[in-house]
Amino acid sequence: MKFPTARTRDAFPIYGQLGIHSGPPAKVFRLPEIALEWPVTVPAGVGPVPGAGPRADPLSTEAQEGFRFLKDIGRLLEEATERVRDAVADGKVATYIPELAKADPALVGIAVHTIDGDTHHAGDATVPFTLQSISKVFALAALMRLTGPAAALDGMPCEPSGDSFHSIVRLEEESGHPRNPLINAGAILVSSRLPGANRREMAGVVEGLLASVLGASVGVDDQVYASESATGYRNRALANYMQHFGLLRNAERACEAYFTQCALSLDAVGLARAGLFLANGGSDPISGTRVIDTDSTCSILALMAMCGLYDQVGRFALSVGIPAKSAVSGGILAIVPGRMAIATYGPALGSKGNSVAGMAMLEFLSRELDLSLFR
Amino acid sequence: MKFPTARTRDAFPIYGQLGIHSGPPAKVFRLPEIALEWPVTVPAGVGPVPGAGPRADPLSTEAQEGFRFLKDIGRLLEEATERVRDAVADGKVATYIPELAKADPALVGIAVHTIDGDTHHAGDATVPFTLQSISKVFALAALMRLTGPAAALDGMPCEPSGDSFHSIVRLEEESGHPRNPLINAGAILVSSRLPGANRREMAGVVEGLLASVLGASVGVDDQVYASESATGYRNRALANYMQHFGLLRNAERACEAYFTQCALSLDAVGLARAGLFLANGGSDPISGTRVIDTDSTCSILALMAMCGLYDQVGRFALSVGIPAKSAVSGGILAIVPGRMAIATYGPALGSKGNSVAGMAMLEFLSRELDLSLFR
Amino acid sequence: MKFPTARTRDAFPIYGQLGIHSGPPAKVFRLPEIALEWPVTVPAGVGPVPGAGPRADPLSTEAQEGFRFLKDIGRLLEEATERVRDAVADGKVATYIPELAKADPALVGIAVHTIDGDTHHAGDATVPFTLQSISKVFALAALMRLTGPAAALDGMPCEPSGDSFHSIVRLEEESGHPRNPLINAGAILVSSRLPGANRREMAGVVEGLLASVLGASVGVDDQVYASESATGYRNRALANYMQHFGLLRNAERACEAYFTQCALSLDAVGLARAGLFLANGGSDPISGTRVIDTDSTCSILALMAMCGLYDQVGRFALSVGIPAKSAVSGGILAIVPGRMAIATYGPALGSKGNSVAGMAMLEFLSRELDLSLFR
Amino acid sequence: MKFPTARTRDAFPIYGQLGIHSGPPAKVFRLPEIALEWPVTVPAGVGPVPGAGPRADPLSTEAQEGFRFLKDIGRLLEEATERVRDAVADGKVATYIPELAKADPALVGIAVHTIDGDTHHAGDATVPFTLQSISKVFALAALMRLTGPAAALDGMPCEPSGDSFHSIVRLEEESGHPRNPLINAGAILVSSRLPGANRREMAGVVEGLLASVLGASVGVDDQVYASESATGYRNRALANYMQHFGLLRNAERACEAYFTQCALSLDAVGLARAGLFLANGGSDPISGTRVIDTDSTCSILALMAMCGLYDQVGRFALSVGIPAKSAVSGGILAIVPGRMAIATYGPALGSKGNSVAGMAMLEFLSRELDLSLFR
Repeated sequence: MKFPTARTRDAFPIYGQLGIHSGPPAKVFRLPEIALEWPVTVPAGVGPVPGAGPRADPLSTEAQEGFRFLKDIGRLLEEATERVRDAVADGKVATYIPELAKADPALVGIAVHTIDGDTHHAGDATVPFTLQSISKVFALAALMRLTGPAAALDGMPCEPSGDSFHSIVRLEEESGHPRNPLINAGAILVSSRLPGANRREMAGVVEGLLASVLGASVGVDDQVYASESATGYRNRALANYMQHFGLLRNAERACEAYFTQCALSLDAVGLARAGLFLANGGSDPISGTRVIDTDSTCSILALMAMCGLYDQVGRFALSVGIPAKSAVSGGILAIVPGRMAIATYGPALGSKGNSVAGMAMLEFLSRELDLSLFR
Repeated sequence: MKFPTARTRDAFPIYGQLGIHSGPPAKVFRLPEIALEWPVTVPAGVGPVPGAGPRADPLSTEAQEGFRFLKDIGRLLEEATERVRDAVADGKVATYIPELAKADPALVGIAVHTIDGDTHHAGDATVPFTLQSISKVFALAALMRLTGPAAALDGMPCEPSGDSFHSIVRLEEESGHPRNPLINAGAILVSSRLPGANRREMAGVVEGLLASVLGASVGVDDQVYASESATGYRNRALANYMQHFGLLRNAERACEAYFTQCALSLDAVGLARAGLFLANGGSDPISGTRVIDTDSTCSILALMAMCGLYDQVGRFALSVGIPAKSAVSGGILAIVPGRMAIATYGPALGSKGNSVAGMAMLEFLSRELDLSLFR
Repeated sequence: MKFPTARTRDAFPIYGQLGIHSGPPAKVFRLPEIALEWPVTVPAGVGPVPGAGPRADPLSTEAQEGFRFLKDIGRLLEEATERVRDAVADGKVATYIPELAKADPALVGIAVHTIDGDTHHAGDATVPFTLQSISKVFALAALMRLTGPAAALDGMPCEPSGDSFHSIVRLEEESGHPRNPLINAGAILVSSRLPGANRREMAGVVEGLLASVLGASVGVDDQVYASESATGYRNRALANYMQHFGLLRNAERACEAYFTQCALSLDAVGLARAGLFLANGGSDPISGTRVIDTDSTCSILALMAMCGLYDQVGRFALSVGIPAKSAVSGGILAIVPGRMAIATYGPALGSKGNSVAGMAMLEFLSRELDLSLFR
Repeated sequence: MKFPTARTRDAFPIYGQLGIHSGPPAKVFRLPEIALEWPVTVPAGVGPVPGAGPRADPLSTEAQEGFRFLKDIGRLLEEATERVRDAVADGKVATYIPELAKADPALVGIAVHTIDGDTHHAGDATVPFTLQSISKVFALAALMRLTGPAAALDGMPCEPSGDSFHSIVRLEEESGHPRNPLINAGAILVSSRLPGANRREMAGVVEGLLASVLGASVGVDDQVYASESATGYRNRALANYMQHFGLLRNAERACEAYFTQCALSLDAVGLARAGLFLANGGSDPISGTRVIDTDSTCSILALMAMCGLYDQVGRFALSVGIPAKSAVSGGILAIVPGRMAIATYGPALGSKGNSVAGMAMLEFLSRELDLSLFR
């Protein structure tokens, strides 16, 4: 079944209410009271380009046949989910946010969306989950849209940290400057720069970007938000530390905005669809909407490649070889530039905080479809 | 002139109003609205012992003559202040709390109080200053009085940190456990354990201990408190980090209590008098009041010796050799067990955050009076 | 002028004797007494494949025209060298190896070699320099050829370190295991695994790989080797530390082999030619020789992308976006998979140890030729 | 039985041959071929002062009775060894030097020597063991005698490290400068400064100091030395690191000298006797020989207090409160200034590398005899 495009926007269901499956009891989602409209202060030239249409030069059908893509993608995704069913027993669901601990570790799902409109999924690809760290990518995109990439990344050297995602050690060594916008400190700094008077308005900017692509609003899982807000003292430490060094002005509000954006909820199908613009130079190939400019897209993909998988980013580069961002909720968003977006879901995490099933499925797909940028 | 003892308590002026000198304009002090009474839940046996009187066996007059103490202490203190007047030019007043930056870097004062009641001072020994980190010693004493030393130190290995006083690196490496109660993280943890519903009540416990010794209430410098509260985000980071690891429950209140106790204000004369019980096994030798038990006293002195001078604690051990605690406001409280308390003041700090004049005067006195525990 | 290929091998001059230019006095090179033959214990299946010829499917001419490659590459290289002439004034030649300090900071050169045989260069592209850290790539390739990629990388998690290239801190935290084979510790570990009874034989394995591609022996700059051996105590510390943890058995020999391989000397033209197999899946497209298998090539490129530019690897990913390895001698080898190898030379280094001119020229070329993997 | 003094020097047996007990098989000791004479280049004024005799003012008999010392010391030592017999089951003998792993973990011994000549011991106080880290104290004393304390400590800030004894992390952060002379790096630096052309001559300087006090030569346990030399690559890493920063010139020789001095062998009775000068201001009270000057002694005691017990130095200050130095061989030398030297032996170590029995016996003795400097 073809994924809904902008042309069928009206019929598109609201994300977060989709989660109908036989697994854990459906969560109750509350529509956020956040601004759904995209802020109007977009710099000239990077705003929506109505009617721009899909990129003029996607890979030729001939080239894609070289990847034997079209003929067997559906079968491959099924095979991918089957292969990892056993492996998930080695992982454990995240517990540091109490609400996440309720996820079913046996869930495994994957979805693919190509830039010329094909979409496939297998397994539990319609089970919604909170974006958590994957939201960092969309928050950064939203900020870049508003300020351009240079201002969005100001004060961050954009280097891999070599430490775990929540480490505060580097902040001390480097005068409060986060290594990059995809570790927690950097992501909180990005969130602090989003416009808005409160957490809902600030996270609403991220939701607005997602909604503009998906053609539907995206819900916030209030239980997960509340759970993270009640326990997120390590992140508050990071934010206060940055405030000490003058990088932000309101540590508490920045954290709250960050916690809210982390609780935005999608399923794998929706996530692959939402991230598709990243595979297409910043322009959504289905609706033709330009989300961000090409330079911003290129920067985000480079950052995902260098810093997107916590401290397994190197192993992922060797075994998969494409830009990706993982989340402790069990999701991974992976981008093959010029070709496709892939989203995986599997809440059983390995010791480094990445989805066991997601890592394995992406490695399998990369081999089968020759996706690595280094091959 | 003899320092007022408990017997002249009524005539004892309120600290913080004493600051009459020709230096910087006198600050306006506001009496704290904190509870002056000592909490009544003191464990049996460690409470005040009215009429206990001075320790039965202070060092004999003969022994003290061996230190040529009585005859020339006044002259020595004058000499000490004279010798360091030039050295202060090398130091700089602390600026990280904006209000502290207003101190006059040329100020130099010293006061000595012996356990048998002699007291002398020289230089700017009646200029009030906020206790800052020196308050950590009295907060720890107050907590030990209420809970005993083991509970007060619970969760802290009581080792020197090897890092600067505000470092957060060790907290991460050691799961949120501060190395000792005299670095900022540990002191905030101590403050969080003081009874009270708000910062005033909690800091009031520390003030109560000081007042019980001094026979007069001790003021809080509200401007310094407000200045630190408005800028103390590094300390808030430490507190939130500890809350993440479950060591405390209300990071914000703990910080506020800590900032308030840090703004308690005394001059060198009063500080030496207040710390005298630490030189006398925990019992104030003038009033005969037992402040804390001997084990607590011994623990506090050991901690001061190991962790009291930031990252110059080793140099201080070699050159001075007695337990001491310094503060970024420029004060140092030094204790010679069984003999005396010494307080120095000199807001010009060296690169490690210790008073240049204070360090030099204590080194001079230690040599002249043979005070080192290692000699 | 076309670069000599395997078909003109006989006429190919010996590298290290090429350095005829008007700059600093020509160094005296001594041909190493190391084994030039490639070790015969190559695993079956990965050895040379005579007559294999260039990869069957290089990018089509049509595609390359899309990059407007063929028409103006020569002009672009000239423009690149011109643009950076001023920038080199901001850099400084490396001084930690005394011999390197003699390099002329004004030198700037660049060479490109495409997988279908075109080659161009501009500026000081025929000035020889020692490979230093770039040799890590060829040593790793040589080891992978002998043992396969898994064994070659054994004991190394292959993650970016987040620290500077010579840091020993991570070794302590991680029980002697280097983060990856491109930081010094990892590279010494790789060298320790090369077969041979002494430094000359071990470095000879690396030289053998280079010679098999270049069709000529590669000299060792004995003065640079001697200079590094006389001063390389930080590297010896790393090696002894790894020996403590049992990762290698002869720290001194490993260091000596490493110092020798670092002193292998090429010019930019030769370096681009030598690295061309990395752009062609492990097979040299000119001679048709298979150097290493495709998996090894993919791993090496991923490692270069993640760890090849010291602590500017992130910035390089954003601004250039291709796998590369830099050296303190001023060289950079950059690989565009499926398209070309680029070598730059410019001994003036920025504060992070990378060639100022090289970084700038690669950024310029990447923009002009649309080389980034993330675009 | 009174311990032999200088007056019975001729009859004094050679240490290392004393170890006659029913425990593990006696080791074979070889007399070192090192120079036994004390170097003659002693600075004027700090050399031996023949006939100086014991310090004029040891604590009066009256004062010592206050400590109820004389009457029951023998019984107390017996009680101390009895009390800890069970506790040693919690510890483990050091294994990082293979030869040390052969020690009997059940051994427990203690010896006390007062500055007025009384000596007592209990348990396995005549079982010889290698001094290991305790030798750092005597090497530092020997160097201070030759160069004065300032030159001996040059380049070391003399601060506690906060890290474990063999950590290399601080060396990197602080440009190769060891925190203090009692961690491994600092001790190797001290050893590197001892005069001598090889390890035997350099370690001979330390032996010479011990011999001059004990009136007998001290043997080197060659098996332990060989074992440490064959495995001491972590220490070699430290030494090479310091050589990189120019702090020493011959890392290998410095390590070998250090390994040799570490293998000097004494029993607890001899160790207490050898360290007695440290309790007496630098002059041996039995023979009247001045070993080092008072300033050097004071510095050494301060360093022992701040850095002598690895990362339990703070706990030891709180529970025992006197300067001490421990060793992984299971020995501890503790000094009560002006009163006595105490040596304990118990090769079962706790997790921090200190003797379980030794720590417990010293805590017991400190309580019973009121030894803490902070009491």
